[in-house]
Amino acid sequence: MITIALPKGALLKDSIELFKQVGLDFSLFLDKSNRQLQITDSTKTAQALLVRAQDVPIYVEYGQAQLGIVGYDVLREKQANVANLTDLQFGYCRLSVAVPKSSTYRRSQELPPHGRVASKFVNSALEHFHNIDLPIEIVPLSGSVELGPITGMSEAIVDLVSTGKTLKENGLIEIDVLYESTARLVAHPLSYRLNRDNLDQLVAKVNKIIND
Amino acid sequence: MITIALPKGALLKDSIELFKQVGLDFSLFLDKSNRQLQITDSTKTAQALLVRAQDVPIYVEYGQAQLGIVGYDVLREKQANVANLTDLQFGYCRLSVAVPKSSTYRRSQELPPHGRVASKFVNSALEHFHNIDLPIEIVPLSGSVELGPITGMSEAIVDLVSTGKTLKENGLIEIDVLYESTARLVAHPLSYRLNRDNLDQLVAKVNKIIND
Repeated sequence: MITIALPKGALLKDSIELFKQVGLDFSLFLDKSNRQLQITDSTKTAQALLVRAQDVPIYVEYGQAQLGIVGYDVLREKQANVANLTDLQFGYCRLSVAVPKSSTYRRSQELPPHGRVASKFVNSALEHFHNIDLPIEIVPLSGSVELGPITGMSEAIVDLVSTGKTLKENGLIEIDVLYESTARLVAHPLSYRLNRDNLDQLVAKVNKIIND
Repeated sequence: MITIALPKGALLKDSIELFKQVGLDFSLFLDKSNRQLQITDSTKTAQALLVRAQDVPIYVEYGQAQLGIVGYDVLREKQANVANLTDLQFGYCRLSVAVPKSSTYRRSQELPPHGRVASKFVNSALEHFHNIDLPIEIVPLSGSVELGPITGMSEAIVDLVSTGKTLKENGLIEIDVLYESTARLVAHPLSYRLNRDNLDQLVAKVNKIIND
C-alpha cells in the first residue's frame, strides 16, 4: 500500500482534490471533527498521513511515506533529500524581502551591512544575502515576522507573500523576490526508483491531470 | 516604557492575569477579534507584544522586550541568553520519553542503540541520550510527534506531557522524565542590570504575588 504525506494548512484542500481526481478519497481530513491523522482510502490501495507542512519532507525522506505534497518553499528551506517530481501549480506564493514603507531601502543591496533581517526562512535568507555579498544578521523568528521591523528589531524581513495583505496592513513593502513557490509532488527516492507498489502508475495519473 | 513579550497559546491567560494583579491590563490579547500584536496598557507605563512562545526569548535577548514570560522548556531547548528571574508556578508540564505501550522498553537505557527518537525538542533529546551514553538518531518533527512510533518511523518520542491524554489516545506510555517545566519571568540581562525604566519595581511586584 502506498502511503502519502499530506500537509496541514493552505495546501490541504487542493491536495485532497487532486487525489480525488485520481480515485483516492482522503476528504475525511477536511472534516473539522476528524481527529485521525492516518486514514486509508476505500480502495485499500493507499493511505494518507496528515502532518505539518514542514514535516512532509521528513516522512518522505525516511520512506515512511512514498509520496508527499509540499510547497517548494519548504523543500528549498529544508534542503530535503526527496525526489521533486511534479509542479502541481497550486499554492502559489513567493519568498520576498520586505521593508517598512517609510524606510529608504528599495533593493536588498541597499540594506545596511550587518543590519538585521527577521525570518522564518533562515537558510533561504542567508543564501540570498550571501549571493549578493551583503553581510547581515538573521533574527530567527517562528511567527509574526512583520513584528521585526515594527518593534525596531530588524531593518527588513524575508517572508512568504501571497496576496500581500499582511505586508500592507503592517506598513511594509516588498523590495525583492528570492524565489516563487508552488506545491510539489515529491517521492522517496529509493521507492520511486524501485517503483514500489506501482508508484509510477499513480504519479503518471497525477501528471496527466496536471498537464491536461 | 517597559516592553513585555507575552507568549501565544497555553500560557497567555495566566500571564495576562498575573500582570493584571500588578496593575497592567493586556486583556485585549484574549479578545478573539483582536488583531493587534502590540498594545499599551492604559497607565502608559508598559506595552506588551504578543508573539509565538518560541519567539519570546528572541525578543528578550535582543532587548526588544525588557521582560517576557516563557516556559522553561523553551528556554532550555533554545539555550536563550536571558535572565531567568522567577518561577511563576503555572503552565506545568514535563518533557518525557514515551514509547508504544506494546514495546518492551521501560527505561531510556533499554532503547536500541542507533534507534530513532522523534521530537520537536532536538537539543533536549540529544542532551538526554548523550548523558546516558546511548547513541540515537533524532527525527526532527515540528508537530504530531506521536505519529513517529505509530508509523514505525521511530522507536520513541521525546515530547511535552501535561495531562498525558495525547499519549494515552495514541497507545504510548511515558518511560522517563527529562525535566519539568513551568512558566518563567525572564528579563533582558543588560536592561535588568541597569534597572532601566525601574524594571526592579515591576519584577518585585510580580515576585510578591507569586510568593504570597
